[in-house]
Amino acid sequence: MPGTPKLDSAKNSAVVGAQDVGTQNVDAQNDGAQNCKVALMGFGTVGSSVARILCERSNTHLRLTHILNRNVARKKVDWLPSSVRWTENIDDVLSSGVDIVVEVMGGLQPTEDWIRRALESGKSVVTANKQLIARHGPELIALARRMKQQIEFGASVAGGVPVISGLQEGLAGDELFKIRGILNGTCNYILSQIESTGIPFATALREAQKLGFAEADPSEDIDGLDARAKLTILARVGLHCRVNAESISARSISAIDSIDFEYANQLGCTIRQISWAELREELREQSKDDNLLAAVQPALVELSSPLARVEGSQNLVMATGKYGGETVFGGHGAGGHPTAVAVVSDILAIARAKQAGMSYAVQPIEKTPTVTADFITKHYLRFMVKDRPGIIASLATILSQCGINIDAVVQKPGCPKSHLPFLITLEECKASLVEQALQQINSLDFLVQPCLHLPIL
Amino acid sequence: MPGTPKLDSAKNSAVVGAQDVGTQNVDAQNDGAQNCKVALMGFGTVGSSVARILCERSNTHLRLTHILNRNVARKKVDWLPSSVRWTENIDDVLSSGVDIVVEVMGGLQPTEDWIRRALESGKSVVTANKQLIARHGPELIALARRMKQQIEFGASVAGGVPVISGLQEGLAGDELFKIRGILNGTCNYILSQIESTGIPFATALREAQKLGFAEADPSEDIDGLDARAKLTILARVGLHCRVNAESISARSISAIDSIDFEYANQLGCTIRQISWAELREELREQSKDDNLLAAVQPALVELSSPLARVEGSQNLVMATGKYGGETVFGGHGAGGHPTAVAVVSDILAIARAKQAGMSYAVQPIEKTPTVTADFITKHYLRFMVKDRPGIIASLATILSQCGINIDAVVQKPGCPKSHLPFLITLEECKASLVEQALQQINSLDFLVQPCLHLPIL
Repeated sequence: MPGTPKLDSAKNSAVVGAQDVGTQNVDAQNDGAQNCKVALMGFGTVGSSVARILCERSNTHLRLTHILNRNVARKKVDWLPSSVRWTENIDDVLSSGVDIVVEVMGGLQPTEDWIRRALESGKSVVTANKQLIARHGPELIALARRMKQQIEFGASVAGGVPVISGLQEGLAGDELFKIRGILNGTCNYILSQIESTGIPFATALREAQKLGFAEADPSEDIDGLDARAKLTILARVGLHCRVNAESISARSISAIDSIDFEYANQLGCTIRQISWAELREELREQSKDDNLLAAVQPALVELSSPLARVEGSQNLVMATGKYGGETVFGGHGAGGHPTAVAVVSDILAIARAKQAGMSYAVQPIEKTPTVTADFITKHYLRFMVKDRPGIIASLATILSQCGINIDAVVQKPGCPKSHLPFLITLEECKASLVEQALQQINSLDFLVQPCLHLPIL
Repeated sequence: MPGTPKLDSAKNSAVVGAQDVGTQNVDAQNDGAQNCKVALMGFGTVGSSVARILCERSNTHLRLTHILNRNVARKKVDWLPSSVRWTENIDDVLSSGVDIVVEVMGGLQPTEDWIRRALESGKSVVTANKQLIARHGPELIALARRMKQQIEFGASVAGGVPVISGLQEGLAGDELFKIRGILNGTCNYILSQIESTGIPFATALREAQKLGFAEADPSEDIDGLDARAKLTILARVGLHCRVNAESISARSISAIDSIDFEYANQLGCTIRQISWAELREELREQSKDDNLLAAVQPALVELSSPLARVEGSQNLVMATGKYGGETVFGGHGAGGHPTAVAVVSDILAIARAKQAGMSYAVQPIEKTPTVTADFITKHYLRFMVKDRPGIIASLATILSQCGINIDAVVQKPGCPKSHLPFLITLEECKASLVEQALQQINSLDFLVQPCLHLPIL
């Protein structure tokens, strides 16, 4: 390896301590244990944070030996030891003696190929790539297993919040059946802003983009695709359900208006983008035809719920088990440093296992349920109408014909007749029943815009 | 083993699935992997919950083979398979082929001896015993290591909340420097009750005792000794500081009155029993003389803090790291089932490691800091006085002589002159400075009772 011997005594070396392997000294008597060599694929925000953490930790058994990136000349930094090899060529990494390849470059290709090749050349992998793991996680785990390697992906969901290990190991003794979470910091930031300042959605989005909290093309976040990939991973890890991300319904937060927060507040609620996966109770016992309820959508949550109190770009996951009840994990869901913490924790877990002679990826046994978004909840229907007599009567008639009970009708005073927002809440019923009623309702001529339909958790 | 072969096909057998070892099938090709035999020491609330979970899980590689308890004739239940051996004799367990001994009997002796003997006879141990681990954890881990066994104690802190594994593994990549938590459900229940109903402390305690939330002798909980043992364990696991529980200051919640919640509320706060351990910032970089700030005490916490929102007997731990910021773990901190989840998760972790050929306890490298409770915070001083002119002047004089700045003086109107409560808040200063001033203040003749001093977090 290039220059590694020099690192041992280097003050500022890119290595993590013997006693730091898992924050624990695996073998005090055998302290000359072999070093664990780490290559970094991707030197963006997360990648440089990972390098920084490896570099700042002292007393070392992890060594950063390679950094792979496009245009390395532009990327090189002066705070890493000169022994680290910068390269644009994946073969330099694959042909090296590296033990763990860390993938923080993102994207599906060539990332997937490179991860496969890394595993095939006998290296373990740590990745933060949620889209890749949501799509190809099971095959990659199987491949790792065949190669007697490990693949860890703790950073792929909720950044620095250790929810993957929490569900997989910390709550292994429970039988989890429900996972709800706030998994997208961008949506949470935008919704919090609309809530606290009353600005329209478009303005909140623009501000988030200006601050770097939202991408130029925000649809991945706003439309729930990012959260859906994370929910797919959590459903696999926590509920042992293998589902395609595409089979999970995702609804945009873009229709949410500040008036909805006013109405939600009158109901003792706020609005958050909620990712929710739950094994249907009546089917939980059966192993074959388990139905998984799953959706990513804006929803009303009671102000007293931990989900309601997640502010700004924080993330939170609530797992519910048959024995332990509700357990909450919360913290920074994004950002270079928090995500890098999750990556380094995964590196340490692999290093610890390697030192202990444990060298394979575990292969989860999974259900392959059909997925439905047909949750049974109360519902919030917000209409925007051109006012005239008989509106409530027409709506009530359609709802009653569909067998849906109205819970309350709320109208904020002082709104213009031409653009009158009002609210109908419905008693508990299936979402599909409401959607059926809305197909009729949305063709009514007094509607200025389609009805906004949110579940009330 | 007694009757184990019969268990394989038994519907209601006390075994946990092959695919359930760590919720993951460790070796699909080698599915006839050896069973992992489990003995239970203690069949109280937690013990019977552990047996229940083992029993209700199907497809199995964990086998409950022994239950040790006093007076087994009285304890025996009909829902466990007849193959489980009930005994009052520890030697029956130690001389058996059991792989993992689960200790949920509590107490220090003979528990400690039995755990030592279990480790010495080549068995791994899972324990929920916080007092034992707070006192003897490091020696027991060292012993386990020498015997190439493991000892896990995830259930010893915060019941079902996976905070030990969260700090030890999930956040291993961070450099944690602060841990704050609500670790005692009894205190939290009592304080919540005073807060919500305005009843006096003594009444709240009696009610908690009636409901079984507090012991007949409540001092272990009320005086902070239970939380202190847990904080000792968290400081070791999260901050790598080895301290004696006795060196951590513990203050009772018994002086808290409903008037304090009124005043706290005026300050935008509530009152909770807070366990707090923090490496002094200026010393964090040095490895030798690290000072650890640590205390268990009632404190004012801002209503917006997750700590303020912990209701009833819930537990919550906030860990703060150099890179990942604040991470929160919350859930059921007590109760048979949640605690049993933590125990079973530990059993599964050991079984997984055993199957993978990883067979030793990890030995943490630890600092041995000096411990102080001399936090720098704002302070809340609540006086109860016999009113007369000049009281504020005398108090202000003493405080100013000690170099302490008053922030505000608050007095609720309409209280009796003979028993007048009022509040002084102080600007940020060391707790020791305030205690020094209070030594003088508490001898003043207008005080009806000693001043209540709480930090404001």
